[in-house]
Amino acid sequence: MRLLSRLAPVALCAATLFNPAFAAEDTAADEQMLRAIYTAALTSSPAYGHLRELTTKYPGRLSGSKNLEGAVLWGEAVLQATGAGRTELQLVMVPHWERGAPESVRYFTKQFVGIVPLKAVALGGSVPTPAGGLTAPVVELQTLDALKTTDVKGKIVFFNRPMDPAAVVPGPAYGGAGDQRSKGPAEAVKYGAVGVLVRSLTHARDDFPHTGNTSYPPDGPRIPAAALSTVAADNLSAALKLDPALTVEMKINSRWLEDAPSHNVIGELKGSASPEKIIVIGGHLDSWDIAPGAHDDGTGIVQSIEVLRLLKAVGYQPRHTIRVVLFTNEENGLRGGAAYSTAAKARNEIHVLAIETDTGGFQPRGFNLGNPAGDAHLKAARWLKLFEPYGIYYFQKGSGGADVGPLLAHGTTVAGLQPDSQRYFDIHHTVEDSLDKVNKRELELGAAAMASLVYLVDQHGL
Amino acid sequence: MRLLSRLAPVALCAATLFNPAFAAEDTAADEQMLRAIYTAALTSSPAYGHLRELTTKYPGRLSGSKNLEGAVLWGEAVLQATGAGRTELQLVMVPHWERGAPESVRYFTKQFVGIVPLKAVALGGSVPTPAGGLTAPVVELQTLDALKTTDVKGKIVFFNRPMDPAAVVPGPAYGGAGDQRSKGPAEAVKYGAVGVLVRSLTHARDDFPHTGNTSYPPDGPRIPAAALSTVAADNLSAALKLDPALTVEMKINSRWLEDAPSHNVIGELKGSASPEKIIVIGGHLDSWDIAPGAHDDGTGIVQSIEVLRLLKAVGYQPRHTIRVVLFTNEENGLRGGAAYSTAAKARNEIHVLAIETDTGGFQPRGFNLGNPAGDAHLKAARWLKLFEPYGIYYFQKGSGGADVGPLLAHGTTVAGLQPDSQRYFDIHHTVEDSLDKVNKRELELGAAAMASLVYLVDQHGL
Repeated sequence: MRLLSRLAPVALCAATLFNPAFAAEDTAADEQMLRAIYTAALTSSPAYGHLRELTTKYPGRLSGSKNLEGAVLWGEAVLQATGAGRTELQLVMVPHWERGAPESVRYFTKQFVGIVPLKAVALGGSVPTPAGGLTAPVVELQTLDALKTTDVKGKIVFFNRPMDPAAVVPGPAYGGAGDQRSKGPAEAVKYGAVGVLVRSLTHARDDFPHTGNTSYPPDGPRIPAAALSTVAADNLSAALKLDPALTVEMKINSRWLEDAPSHNVIGELKGSASPEKIIVIGGHLDSWDIAPGAHDDGTGIVQSIEVLRLLKAVGYQPRHTIRVVLFTNEENGLRGGAAYSTAAKARNEIHVLAIETDTGGFQPRGFNLGNPAGDAHLKAARWLKLFEPYGIYYFQKGSGGADVGPLLAHGTTVAGLQPDSQRYFDIHHTVEDSLDKVNKRELELGAAAMASLVYLVDQHGL
Repeated sequence: MRLLSRLAPVALCAATLFNPAFAAEDTAADEQMLRAIYTAALTSSPAYGHLRELTTKYPGRLSGSKNLEGAVLWGEAVLQATGAGRTELQLVMVPHWERGAPESVRYFTKQFVGIVPLKAVALGGSVPTPAGGLTAPVVELQTLDALKTTDVKGKIVFFNRPMDPAAVVPGPAYGGAGDQRSKGPAEAVKYGAVGVLVRSLTHARDDFPHTGNTSYPPDGPRIPAAALSTVAADNLSAALKLDPALTVEMKINSRWLEDAPSHNVIGELKGSASPEKIIVIGGHLDSWDIAPGAHDDGTGIVQSIEVLRLLKAVGYQPRHTIRVVLFTNEENGLRGGAAYSTAAKARNEIHVLAIETDTGGFQPRGFNLGNPAGDAHLKAARWLKLFEPYGIYYFQKGSGGADVGPLLAHGTTVAGLQPDSQRYFDIHHTVEDSLDKVNKRELELGAAAMASLVYLVDQHGL
């Protein structure tokens, strides 16, 4: 493309949605405020620098790790430096699983004199293999249902159903293949399997394995489980076609420890008119141990803090209390979100809105919204025209996200920032979820979108 | 983010736009066809492989280069292999400028005993410096207007106005700063300047300089001109504050040659009902010499070819002739687009629609549309609901793009694919515009969006 005049995308669609029932709102003032928020975000944001600091000093922030608690103290300090009038560390006991020495997965086949390594990572929560490793033949399955009709006794089950490539939005494809990882090991063991390998949950075809949580029933038997990179999964599948009797050796050195203390980090600006009513913005501080945790969810952390900064930077005095919550233990327990909502209920706190940002720091496109009446997204639609110049195109029904979801059950209106997601699952839960995948301006635009929604709800209600 | 059910973004906005005036269209059949097109694109596309081939075999496809003519033959072969019933190489004489040996820009200051190199590239079209280089003091300006009130005689003018960081859409910010590059040298020489340096046109702050075209009047004096990386521009600006008398040495080894033969590459599927009426899809084959030309515009090339493949893959028999045009010489002459429209007029060809894709292979979000009546985007809006599941949110008024623009003047309806643009200008016209910046699925979604629009116009008209 060369130098031509460029068009700003003035969408047709939002313009048609203006609802005269809300005409009393001062649109010109709102337009001005959004413009000020976006300008502040794009010209003076420390968010990208914060993300560099978080992912450099505290990568691999898994529950129970020193790095997560380092990030907790870092988060509180940044909130204070950003001007939070009150900060609080809310104690949460979190699961403590450790990977231990790096895992290995390799196979032995009559087709080849050597041994063939496969890029793999243990699933979060996996039990270790016996010392010396686990060696067994392999059976490849596409579904958990196939366990019912396949002899897997004494074998390693290899779940190899890809995420649906035809899904335009990757999220549902991730959900559609996710049972293999989350429930595969617990199901396979019921049928006598001795281990599980699972194809990484991604549309990308590369050699980076994706970890993630797997769950076992509290008192049932447990077998070791690892994710293969998609290239490794394709390779193993091809090798099995040539030699169905090949064996795989898995070595996993993980261990479970006692629950560990961690903290939700809270920082707030007191409301000027209704300080007892709270608007929450949050993401999660923890990340998988192998990941720098840039998009998942370092971007959500620095965007949430940036919302607070932006409101101050534009000189806005919020009517409600604006509270940033850096949740702990989203990845393998959800204890932070649960503890926060339990405490909020115990304290009889009134939450007007809780916005979560935990789907990557890519260019924001909309919000999901949920409330008990199920009409929050329809009410918010009156603001589509205001958001139009900023590329926010939709409000859809949803439940916010994993950490604010519990507040919805308590009657709170929740929201979730929805960025572009095509690149998210390429790096999700891998060593590749690093700072270089984050675009500074896309990150800032997400913070500005949330600050704008906070402002509108603070002014006009939802 | 962990494993939760994900929401597909069902936008509210487009649903409200359904226009009963077009209710005769068979929406269910259209929905089915779009779903088939997107599935074919996401499950069986060779486009990314084509892009790898194009950018690996033929990087730096500047007009007059061997690599551009290699790409011409490659493009024709791929069109034939994709099933084009007829292909044609349309001769176009193109400008022939060569960079020559790598340029260098460095400064000498009393603050420092050594010499300081600055990352720089000659602007396309720049004349060379004298043998041995050009050394002169530097004056930093923010605008071309400032030439009128500043003594620049015998000096190198350093235009250092950044792209507006507060612009949400980067395109207008690019346009807003572009006069420094396109007209700066031709203006500065009128006031006695001996050379020009210009801040790279990008929001990114890094050490990759961005080239691009600069123009001189045909018979006026010409001075050498180079772009500095944004980091180098900031460094030079800081150095000038400490030592306003510092000197810069520029060495540029470029040369102008006689116009060279090149070709627009045409491949088409003959229409079944109205073969004399043509729908064009195209991008440009040429790229800057220093760039692999992945996003600018290799993605447009392989997407255009993919549109043809997709229509065949879903078994659709187009009523109109579907013509893919791989334009030559977009970057420094626009001769390909001009030659195509001139020939079309001379042959009395009827063009129903011409779609251009030349703003990067990022996730598509909408289209711009233009026609003489100025209402093409309003007519297309009846299809917004059909596009909604695919993340196409808007149709806006526009003029297609640089290569199809001339057809608009002949009465053709034109369109341009509009992808996300936050990452585009980070790499535009640099060595960094490489395959690794392209996401395979985003690329495929762009081709599917164009194929869908082609199908709808072929079926229903616009």
